[in-house]
Amino acid sequence: MIVQKYGGTSVGTAARIRRVSRRIAKTVKSGEQVVAVVSAMGNTTDRLIALARSVNPEPPARELDMLVANGETITAPLVAMCLQGMGVPAVSLSGLQAGVQTSAHHSRARIHAIKPDRILELLREGKVAVVAGFQGVTEDLEVTTLGRGGSDTTAVALAAALKADVCEIFTDVDGIFTADPRIVKSARKLTHIRYDEMLELAAVGARVMHPRAVEIGELYGVPIHVRSSFHDGVGTMIVAKVPMEDRQRVRGIAQETNVAKITVVGVADRPGVAAAIFEPLGKAGISVDVIVQNIGRSGRTDLTFSVAESDLKAAEKLVKAAAKTVGATRVASAGGIAKLSIVGTGMLGMPGIAGRMFRALADAGINIEMISTSEIRITCLVARDQVDKGVRVLHKTFELDRD
Amino acid sequence: MIVQKYGGTSVGTAARIRRVSRRIAKTVKSGEQVVAVVSAMGNTTDRLIALARSVNPEPPARELDMLVANGETITAPLVAMCLQGMGVPAVSLSGLQAGVQTSAHHSRARIHAIKPDRILELLREGKVAVVAGFQGVTEDLEVTTLGRGGSDTTAVALAAALKADVCEIFTDVDGIFTADPRIVKSARKLTHIRYDEMLELAAVGARVMHPRAVEIGELYGVPIHVRSSFHDGVGTMIVAKVPMEDRQRVRGIAQETNVAKITVVGVADRPGVAAAIFEPLGKAGISVDVIVQNIGRSGRTDLTFSVAESDLKAAEKLVKAAAKTVGATRVASAGGIAKLSIVGTGMLGMPGIAGRMFRALADAGINIEMISTSEIRITCLVARDQVDKGVRVLHKTFELDRD
Repeated sequence: MIVQKYGGTSVGTAARIRRVSRRIAKTVKSGEQVVAVVSAMGNTTDRLIALARSVNPEPPARELDMLVANGETITAPLVAMCLQGMGVPAVSLSGLQAGVQTSAHHSRARIHAIKPDRILELLREGKVAVVAGFQGVTEDLEVTTLGRGGSDTTAVALAAALKADVCEIFTDVDGIFTADPRIVKSARKLTHIRYDEMLELAAVGARVMHPRAVEIGELYGVPIHVRSSFHDGVGTMIVAKVPMEDRQRVRGIAQETNVAKITVVGVADRPGVAAAIFEPLGKAGISVDVIVQNIGRSGRTDLTFSVAESDLKAAEKLVKAAAKTVGATRVASAGGIAKLSIVGTGMLGMPGIAGRMFRALADAGINIEMISTSEIRITCLVARDQVDKGVRVLHKTFELDRD
Repeated sequence: MIVQKYGGTSVGTAARIRRVSRRIAKTVKSGEQVVAVVSAMGNTTDRLIALARSVNPEPPARELDMLVANGETITAPLVAMCLQGMGVPAVSLSGLQAGVQTSAHHSRARIHAIKPDRILELLREGKVAVVAGFQGVTEDLEVTTLGRGGSDTTAVALAAALKADVCEIFTDVDGIFTADPRIVKSARKLTHIRYDEMLELAAVGARVMHPRAVEIGELYGVPIHVRSSFHDGVGTMIVAKVPMEDRQRVRGIAQETNVAKITVVGVADRPGVAAAIFEPLGKAGISVDVIVQNIGRSGRTDLTFSVAESDLKAAEKLVKAAAKTVGATRVASAGGIAKLSIVGTGMLGMPGIAGRMFRALADAGINIEMISTSEIRITCLVARDQVDKGVRVLHKTFELDRD
């Protein structure tokens, strides 16, 4: 049994829906049971949101969910009827009909459970279930949407609930690469990658899959196959264990260019100051990323952290207000930053990786502004206009072009 | 408590949705509890059907229902969020959430029952319920659509279930007229009309309301107010009893121009012949209207009937096949016909109405090809290019321009 997820670009036009349907039909003819999870066609979601804003500049979340959920419930029957036209029995299901039960957090609902009875019945009858992704219902049958990465999440969660053999994520790239192929010509497609590596890569800029869906895959042990919707070639398998020879090394490089930094200068070095600054940001839904606190001099310190550059204006306003209350000297900010990260479980217990990274960047004349690490990731903040060069340098340094 | 129904034209753009919302807000501020039933925006349904045909020339009814139901579930949250933006608490409901239970006849489902618990709860909380018209669900939560006149039917059925004081149908005309105002300048808007008169008028060409919704109104005694969505003026009340002085007369004139006739010449005058001809038409979903059988000579007769001109080609093919099996001489057909009808409960027991009608048409040089009557209606088939003249002549003959 296979769960296949087709994103908005893959189903963006009638011609593309026919192509997706042919692909599903082919999988069915190879003897598989197929559950297809589909997104809204092309820019449908954006168009619905624009329509909402034209009647209410701040559309309430419950009604916005009711509205945008139509995007996916338009695609699903189109794919099902296209399949039927090709002689493949198929039935479309809304989130409700597919048994996707969620929390009541509109626009960012969490899947609580999936009751797949209806889907299992369809599969037993030899039919393809075409499920509207990105949506579910609460206990009270209120329509919810899952937020970013929603359709991926629906697909992986369904694969978990159905105990499917694999969840295939069809996308416009060929798989997960050692680095962005647009930046590094010699970037290599990985045949396998671990869930935790994929999570780290996704967190620091790799956009192929949303970390949320990867987490569910890890939790329930669902193998995820990220592959191209444009051809039949295999992509990258996201799994718990990668083959032996792929372990002891850096696995991938990611970059994220939408980064800015804010420095609160002359903060009193006492408890509660960081909370006073970061709490308002959290309430406003602004994610703070790398945080560095300089060593204090005479009881005062500088606090620097990064935010998405698109959040900079809003963040600055909140931080300036907070800075006043804690008696900071001033607030400085700068855009034009980028994150440059290396990821790999092979880094665990391999001393010297960080040193090699910093040395390679220094030799290339790239200044490191901030550093942040996890067990399997090292991230450096660098000037944005140097990040592509940095990606290429690190790709070469860690020999990622070699198989 | 008022149920208001807004059709596709009334909610066709964001600006019109704002206007509809202002109207609902005004009704709420006047102290009424309001349930608004909305159709799909403008030509959304047609666009969805075209999209369906582009992936499957004969889209299966179950999937087509899943698809087109999105039209109404897009409008409903838009109206609800617009109302909220105006400070009027409102919640949108799909057919399922509104408790509209239907038969499983996709694309032409019948409403079995409405469980209005959720709506009543919203009204108790002082909120407007904005219900997606035209749709419902089966016991198995399969999405259905109600077919022609669906949103009107939802509105009147909801009004019945909620025991609302009135069901207001907002439309692009000012109400029900004694004749089509585009044809008869002196046509008069009726303040009241009986359910049965409205049914007859709708059946013979008046397009303002679908007979199906009128039937439910009659069955449950729901007063229906047909009024303009463009201004506040009162329209026409459809009720069980009209004021005394409005009774004893012809009430309205309707015309229908999409008419053709088929004649089966030389049919054997024996049982079973009519069935052999009309059964295949019924199976093909082709409605046969006026039927006339000439007096037979030497055991043979001619059978003439009317069909919609848009059905003529398909009907002719079926009739020719059937005519062979019953040994008819030949089949003739002609388009370019129109129906011209007078309607009014006042005709009951008033001899001479038919005579006056035929005389007036004869004096105007209009030839009557066929005649059909009910208790409260007389219909003549005439040449299409004479029907407008006929409407004007009859409007004058029966003094419909006088109050």
